[in-house]
Amino acid sequence: MTIGSFYPPQRTLMGPGPSDIYPQVLQALSRPTIGHLDPLFIGMMDELKQLLQYAFQTQNTFTIAVSAPGSAGMEACFVNLVEPGDKVIVCRNGVFGERMRENVERCGGEAVMVDNAWGEPVAPGLVEQALAANPDAKIVAFVHAETSTGALTDAEAIAKLARQHDCLTIVDAVTSLGGVPLLVDEWQLDAVYSGSQKCLSCVPGLSPLTFSQRAVDKIQSRKTPVQSWFLDQSLVLGYWSGEGKRSYHHTAPVNSLYALHEALVLLQSEGLENAWQRHKDVHLELREGLEKLGIEFVVDEACRLPQLNAVHIPDGVDDALVRKTLLERYNLEIGAGLGALAGKAWRIGLMGYAARSENVALCLKALETTLK
Amino acid sequence: MTIGSFYPPQRTLMGPGPSDIYPQVLQALSRPTIGHLDPLFIGMMDELKQLLQYAFQTQNTFTIAVSAPGSAGMEACFVNLVEPGDKVIVCRNGVFGERMRENVERCGGEAVMVDNAWGEPVAPGLVEQALAANPDAKIVAFVHAETSTGALTDAEAIAKLARQHDCLTIVDAVTSLGGVPLLVDEWQLDAVYSGSQKCLSCVPGLSPLTFSQRAVDKIQSRKTPVQSWFLDQSLVLGYWSGEGKRSYHHTAPVNSLYALHEALVLLQSEGLENAWQRHKDVHLELREGLEKLGIEFVVDEACRLPQLNAVHIPDGVDDALVRKTLLERYNLEIGAGLGALAGKAWRIGLMGYAARSENVALCLKALETTLK
Repeated sequence: MTIGSFYPPQRTLMGPGPSDIYPQVLQALSRPTIGHLDPLFIGMMDELKQLLQYAFQTQNTFTIAVSAPGSAGMEACFVNLVEPGDKVIVCRNGVFGERMRENVERCGGEAVMVDNAWGEPVAPGLVEQALAANPDAKIVAFVHAETSTGALTDAEAIAKLARQHDCLTIVDAVTSLGGVPLLVDEWQLDAVYSGSQKCLSCVPGLSPLTFSQRAVDKIQSRKTPVQSWFLDQSLVLGYWSGEGKRSYHHTAPVNSLYALHEALVLLQSEGLENAWQRHKDVHLELREGLEKLGIEFVVDEACRLPQLNAVHIPDGVDDALVRKTLLERYNLEIGAGLGALAGKAWRIGLMGYAARSENVALCLKALETTLK
Repeated sequence: MTIGSFYPPQRTLMGPGPSDIYPQVLQALSRPTIGHLDPLFIGMMDELKQLLQYAFQTQNTFTIAVSAPGSAGMEACFVNLVEPGDKVIVCRNGVFGERMRENVERCGGEAVMVDNAWGEPVAPGLVEQALAANPDAKIVAFVHAETSTGALTDAEAIAKLARQHDCLTIVDAVTSLGGVPLLVDEWQLDAVYSGSQKCLSCVPGLSPLTFSQRAVDKIQSRKTPVQSWFLDQSLVLGYWSGEGKRSYHHTAPVNSLYALHEALVLLQSEGLENAWQRHKDVHLELREGLEKLGIEFVVDEACRLPQLNAVHIPDGVDDALVRKTLLERYNLEIGAGLGALAGKAWRIGLMGYAARSENVALCLKALETTLK
């Protein structure tokens, strides 16, 4: 066995993530590694917290990046906020709502499911019914932007209902953060997690996370220990608090955090509102082109995510062959369907640095040629 | 608030990790990101598995890198192998044995502690006594190379005892992998986890992990689901198996995995035995110089780790001031003491790319000047 270095090609990443990475982020990634307790590193972590607060539009003191992918960010919310026996209303309109259910049950909680069809947003009316029928529910969990279908749910409305019934909210913002408005404080969301590799256009492997004071209070009043040591946020809190001494919890993924810092510096420099507008504008360019090709969207216009375009695969088209051709001939990745949409839909991502007119032009021309 | 890019200095990392990173690894890290389901990425993952098998000296089919730091690798072992009510013999001779105890208890297991003093290895005789006194024990857990003290435990001997009592072993090899002999198959270890940022000289954030067939059998015969979704290896197994279709579990930390691949290509190129010898040779250089400075080791020579040199802070020396001076004047990081050794010891790492004569020379001269 002799294995040599791996040299990946330059792809254009227009799937459901990872998205195209900003060149500046890749540069930041390979800067010299320093120790995770180095005063300069700790200074960077303080900045990173401020930058994450900006991205999430929150003043939450507890705003961090979990040292693992978005699915660990999801789990961090559930293991910290759900105690055995807790009833959680889980909204399911795609893959990630189902994953939330699995998380609740592994925490010993009871999941009450609110189902909407794949491609639809979560219906506030159904959530209200579930809350009325389950006055002992403690949490409402839902996905803001369903990566498996491209549907956007009205997070503000769901969170308002949850508050009226004295429930906390757990919100999956993996695909929404940086791509569409997400106003954690204004909408009074309680536990919100995201991913580095979607609209932030950072490398995959980190999960931005923010907890409201209500969520922190719930953690601090737990009767049972958090079942995960690695994700126990009461242990991590000390590290990120910025109040005096940082205690050692685990070795931080130093270089990935450089990259996230850089991605957020770029977001701050562009401005959140401008980034949202850019995603929208580029989505409209893509939509126009796809419609000319006779390709139809899975999700109604009113709740369509600009950054994740799920479209029906035209009749008679070989799904796998088209994606293979795009990849091999054009170095262009688009996403396959997932779960109920497997083989039936493509997911075309316009996330972060991928949300550019040149990407749309490439994608449209490559699709046009390949589908002929 | 306007925050600019972060430019870390070039440090020499001679603490307990992260260690100095190979320049080639930093280069690999910033290669173009491709999708985690891209056929070329999957090909790289197959190579990575082979490279990890070489590093661990195992043929275990289940040999992977957990997408999170070593403490998540530890947790992956416990949550998959310990079921509620299981009795686990946990050997504690430093910080990480104590963390194992916390893991066992969070899994609903019962930890039977075997204690040795900080700086001593785990005594096989004590393990044997615990096994005799607890015939219902199912697992023996211990740390091969204690990062908090620099002591090396005889993993082969402990594993032999465990097998004689029909127990599985969980072995922390975070600091040992690549630095001292670790022969997973020959020693018949069952669940072994490590870290990317120690003797492999890769960036922090990944945890190499290997399970024997006995460990896989135990996972597959569990009566209760694994409490963690993210770390449930029965879900991850499909992704790494290399048998046909890779199913989506979580988004792999693509660029960090490029880096680990490159670090392991370098290890393969050097040869494991040569890497062990290099760590030993450079350790002897450091030892000679430290002895000339009148600095004494915490750990007896017989079980001293070459890659992690815990030394007593000389009387009357200001611990924090010395480390600050080394860092600020020489850009040299050495490690503080941890736990029982806080304020009493320094930990000088010679791990992976840091195990070079030029690092020893810098460290000795800088210490000599600073201690004057």
